[in-house]
Amino acid sequence: MPGNSFGKALVLTSYGESHGAAVGGVLDGFPANLIIDLSFIQSELDRRRSGLEFFASPRLEEDKIEILSGIYNGKSTGAPIAFLIHNHDQKPADYDHLTTVYRPSHADFTWQQKYGIRDPRGGGRSSARETLVRVAGGAFAKLFLQTNNIQVNARISQLGGFQIQNPGFPVGDKAFATGYRVSGIEDPAIIVFLEHLKSDGDTTGGVIACSITGVTAGLGEPVFDKLQADLAKAMLSINSVKGFEYGSGFEGAAMKGSEHNDPFVNEGGVIKTHTNYSGGIQGGISNGEEIYFNVAFKPVSTLMRDQETVTTAGEKTTLKGKGRHDVCVLPRALPIVEAMAALVIADHLIRK
Amino acid sequence: MPGNSFGKALVLTSYGESHGAAVGGVLDGFPANLIIDLSFIQSELDRRRSGLEFFASPRLEEDKIEILSGIYNGKSTGAPIAFLIHNHDQKPADYDHLTTVYRPSHADFTWQQKYGIRDPRGGGRSSARETLVRVAGGAFAKLFLQTNNIQVNARISQLGGFQIQNPGFPVGDKAFATGYRVSGIEDPAIIVFLEHLKSDGDTTGGVIACSITGVTAGLGEPVFDKLQADLAKAMLSINSVKGFEYGSGFEGAAMKGSEHNDPFVNEGGVIKTHTNYSGGIQGGISNGEEIYFNVAFKPVSTLMRDQETVTTAGEKTTLKGKGRHDVCVLPRALPIVEAMAALVIADHLIRK
Amino acid sequence: MPGNSFGKALVLTSYGESHGAAVGGVLDGFPANLIIDLSFIQSELDRRRSGLEFFASPRLEEDKIEILSGIYNGKSTGAPIAFLIHNHDQKPADYDHLTTVYRPSHADFTWQQKYGIRDPRGGGRSSARETLVRVAGGAFAKLFLQTNNIQVNARISQLGGFQIQNPGFPVGDKAFATGYRVSGIEDPAIIVFLEHLKSDGDTTGGVIACSITGVTAGLGEPVFDKLQADLAKAMLSINSVKGFEYGSGFEGAAMKGSEHNDPFVNEGGVIKTHTNYSGGIQGGISNGEEIYFNVAFKPVSTLMRDQETVTTAGEKTTLKGKGRHDVCVLPRALPIVEAMAALVIADHLIRK
Amino acid sequence: MPGNSFGKALVLTSYGESHGAAVGGVLDGFPANLIIDLSFIQSELDRRRSGLEFFASPRLEEDKIEILSGIYNGKSTGAPIAFLIHNHDQKPADYDHLTTVYRPSHADFTWQQKYGIRDPRGGGRSSARETLVRVAGGAFAKLFLQTNNIQVNARISQLGGFQIQNPGFPVGDKAFATGYRVSGIEDPAIIVFLEHLKSDGDTTGGVIACSITGVTAGLGEPVFDKLQADLAKAMLSINSVKGFEYGSGFEGAAMKGSEHNDPFVNEGGVIKTHTNYSGGIQGGISNGEEIYFNVAFKPVSTLMRDQETVTTAGEKTTLKGKGRHDVCVLPRALPIVEAMAALVIADHLIRK
Repeated sequence: MPGNSFGKALVLTSYGESHGAAVGGVLDGFPANLIIDLSFIQSELDRRRSGLEFFASPRLEEDKIEILSGIYNGKSTGAPIAFLIHNHDQKPADYDHLTTVYRPSHADFTWQQKYGIRDPRGGGRSSARETLVRVAGGAFAKLFLQTNNIQVNARISQLGGFQIQNPGFPVGDKAFATGYRVSGIEDPAIIVFLEHLKSDGDTTGGVIACSITGVTAGLGEPVFDKLQADLAKAMLSINSVKGFEYGSGFEGAAMKGSEHNDPFVNEGGVIKTHTNYSGGIQGGISNGEEIYFNVAFKPVSTLMRDQETVTTAGEKTTLKGKGRHDVCVLPRALPIVEAMAALVIADHLIRK
Repeated sequence: MPGNSFGKALVLTSYGESHGAAVGGVLDGFPANLIIDLSFIQSELDRRRSGLEFFASPRLEEDKIEILSGIYNGKSTGAPIAFLIHNHDQKPADYDHLTTVYRPSHADFTWQQKYGIRDPRGGGRSSARETLVRVAGGAFAKLFLQTNNIQVNARISQLGGFQIQNPGFPVGDKAFATGYRVSGIEDPAIIVFLEHLKSDGDTTGGVIACSITGVTAGLGEPVFDKLQADLAKAMLSINSVKGFEYGSGFEGAAMKGSEHNDPFVNEGGVIKTHTNYSGGIQGGISNGEEIYFNVAFKPVSTLMRDQETVTTAGEKTTLKGKGRHDVCVLPRALPIVEAMAALVIADHLIRK
Repeated sequence: MPGNSFGKALVLTSYGESHGAAVGGVLDGFPANLIIDLSFIQSELDRRRSGLEFFASPRLEEDKIEILSGIYNGKSTGAPIAFLIHNHDQKPADYDHLTTVYRPSHADFTWQQKYGIRDPRGGGRSSARETLVRVAGGAFAKLFLQTNNIQVNARISQLGGFQIQNPGFPVGDKAFATGYRVSGIEDPAIIVFLEHLKSDGDTTGGVIACSITGVTAGLGEPVFDKLQADLAKAMLSINSVKGFEYGSGFEGAAMKGSEHNDPFVNEGGVIKTHTNYSGGIQGGISNGEEIYFNVAFKPVSTLMRDQETVTTAGEKTTLKGKGRHDVCVLPRALPIVEAMAALVIADHLIRK
Repeated sequence: MPGNSFGKALVLTSYGESHGAAVGGVLDGFPANLIIDLSFIQSELDRRRSGLEFFASPRLEEDKIEILSGIYNGKSTGAPIAFLIHNHDQKPADYDHLTTVYRPSHADFTWQQKYGIRDPRGGGRSSARETLVRVAGGAFAKLFLQTNNIQVNARISQLGGFQIQNPGFPVGDKAFATGYRVSGIEDPAIIVFLEHLKSDGDTTGGVIACSITGVTAGLGEPVFDKLQADLAKAMLSINSVKGFEYGSGFEGAAMKGSEHNDPFVNEGGVIKTHTNYSGGIQGGISNGEEIYFNVAFKPVSTLMRDQETVTTAGEKTTLKGKGRHDVCVLPRALPIVEAMAALVIADHLIRK
């Protein structure tokens, strides 16, 4: 019943607060006898940390993962894999001013209403630092998926109001490009936009597109645990996410059935679909085509400017911009989206 | 691990195929001592059945619910509530032609790939008839929510490419209208559009907006089981759903943080937010404001016209339009969206 | 969180009250493509009904199972299998006197304390009639186990204070006899004992021994979900069960390690154990030997004689013996013990 | 589906191998705002470590608990409580001889059969060192139970073949003594027995009795998750446990119903039972009386003497006694039994 575990056959249990001793997780149900490349796990954490350096937050944790169990002589043993990342860069004084104020569009107020107590340091349990656990867990899932020739790739498709062109990425088309990742934004207009936000102490959101290739037909469940339902839950469980669509998505709502249906064809003895508005999933179960979906992120809530709000006593107050913040969370969110997608696919693969 | 149960504290287990003996469910965890108004339960099933009569499918089942357990002297006892709806209008001969063909954008092919066997009669387990179980389960959940002064209301906000105006429904605004339901479409252009589709044997999709009012602050979970994550899973588990967004949704991606943040204000001693781009949820937990979200539906996959596809043996064939079909599923989907939302909120209420 | 489902990969959800419309269940996770012999399912229900006829309760329900879903053309489809047994022999007037009294050692008082409401007719949800659902679910599990060459057999090893000799059943020995079932009690002393109980309106308990053969090494889980832990839970969840022991059981507590350890031996290339005090399970996982355990049942609580108790208002009263009752529940409990054991083994088999 | 988590509303997830970096756990669902006395948590771990010193194993780890999350300013926050105990006393060389041999009545062989790989150091995941996690988790549960005036106490009632007399402990009687713990064995015959075992390199088992007082009527579930079923699973999940009985237990099987039924009486306005053969539970739900049960432990499997067994290649070999071992595990098992019982009761308390 508690909400800190994810998955049914491959279960990731997450713990840790932003400024506690550590964040960490336990991954239970991971297959035995797989070779574990720890440098890959660490590299995924590093991807999440870096982001677009010039406008990312200055917190420079090492985010070094420590493995506590489940691996012996470089291989998984079937026992739960426990890991943690210690929190080193703790400056609790940075957060003293937050003990008596509710930050707009953060979880301060709602956590207090639910639990009657909260850890105000950096958002406590609701900090985006918790996503380290997801990235680590997802990295293990990716290792497992790789042995099944499944690849998960996310990229930024919209940043603020800017559509980011990627050749070969028309939604609903089979040509969805894989392997593309934002290593920097090259459109000068976007750079100007981001620099303006930074100097204003403001932020923006965007959309991440994700592609999963290599999933054979027959993965998923037909009723409540449809593949798209579990992906949607996984994505909406990420901080700042406001929406999810797969295949034709919201645009599909305006299409006619005769346009939207994906005709089956026989390609060299293999049953394929001619188009892929289904996004690789029909009736909750994979059909062997590429699975792809979009995830909308709201702008970062922490601003470097004054905001009107109330104190915990309900009195009107002004919150000053202070501490760390990102202008845009999307570059860091790429490995998080991939990790959660990988956990969902791995979970269904083991259930199968 | 199997996927036919939904919820953690209030668990709905669903069973039944379109042309089997019955569809039904077991609702476990329902609070004891509540008065059960069976006529309300039946009326919800009737809402789902009728739809927009003039272009809905001609299947006219009575869809009469039978209660098997869990209620004594008109009250819930704490024992699981079992119910079923018998399938009367079975014309298996209608589906003989489907045993050897895969219908485009249906679950025929994927179910076969997963299980190696399938019930071809009307889509079997993947039929939308399964949603009867959700509507019945959700109706019980609504009875429980009503005792907590919580209301769940859905309406059609887009039909095909037509935006349906509803005074007081600007997304992101606190004025989101409740209580509105489509009882008929009055815009003549929409009627013309639907009639053209019907005569063409074609179909369309649309968007349903849903509002939940009366939820006090503090409901939900902060990490994986965020309220929006469970709502997203609930919605994407419905047949034909392609997307979910809550609060500012995909539009929020293009906003600035300074526009999007919802300032806290003190309204007569109660902490409220001035705007509601958060959609009533912050950090996965309700903040006391209205919860609202959109759900995108693809066009109905069953067409009354010829379609290219393959047989189960992989040979090219033409599927003839035949049997029952809806031009648009949205009117019928309103109670389904409400039911799934009610189940999520009731589940979290009991968990709390 | 609710407690009416059993199993993780193969989940049986149970519902129904003794004098409601029906008792029934939903079995989710059952493998697809298995041939379902419904006459076998019915025969298991018949075994439970008959018992030792001459001293069993006179309730003569037909207990005819109806299948509602999950089977098509005689085979399982992977969809949940729903079934129910209607309650025909309802004489609610028999139970009018129970609405205001708490029967000793029944669940009347505790159910009322928990839920604040109860269905007094025949014990409502706490009636042993609920075990019909387990027997039916377990019968499906047995069909699955048979395809894996696994057999589950229970027999009575103690009836009241009488040990029932069965050649080849020394606990802890590998020669544990299988296939033996009580078809009647032949020891004249036992007959006399039972007849005395009957004429006194009294009852007795006993012990059931159960054997599971054909389980290969490697089934189970090493920590919380040890095979013996799940078997223990399954058995203690049966009405009237007071104890569980496997392998050497309580007698093993007095043994020396040097006596109790089961030496590994190589028998024609297969690693076996020379003795089987381990009861076929080591570290929670099967070792390939026979799995066997004992289950203690208390005497039936319903007596045909006067008993002192209190009314629901707390006033002293005398409960008259009235209605149906069994002198001894063990013959009927044999298929129930087997069913719950079969569900546990099938669940672990699917998890594996 | 994986088996390293225990509980539904209060979930303990366990990880760690005997000679890995650490053993630890995550306790999710623990109530917020409780004062956490860490010295009590540590004292429970110390109780488990010490045992009966003169014949316990010489491994002298400090077993110092580290808290990683979930506690802020001395109080629980509602976030998951993560803790770990580092493994310091690692002498892997002690276990080199075990990589190629299957120890009798250990989990070596079965783990290998299940996973195809194993960590041979000290039993790996199957080591009794894993119970540290249970004791720590159970200690938190006890803190919660104390705020509800519930006490859990275990004592040794049988050691090898010796019954250990405790005034006021007739099974089935209401006078079951609480608060008694074995701080040393005073019967000279037992001391002689244990010393003989030690000099022989042999071991023994025994029985632990456990009492839970302060549980009010109405706790538990009526069908599969009966209180006794969850207690049975909890106990049988402990290493070396072979049996569980509650209330009258196996002796109850030979009683008559007229002897065994517990008459209800009104004691000063409170409904009580005159006797307590029910062991405080009726129909799976607590009745307000003392809950008590017995747990049988087999003799320790690690012997300090030669044993016949086979190598991992199936060849006959002799296993030499070597490394650490206990003559009797019961003194150490007392806090483990209490911990698992506390977790079950706390879980049901939160579910309620």
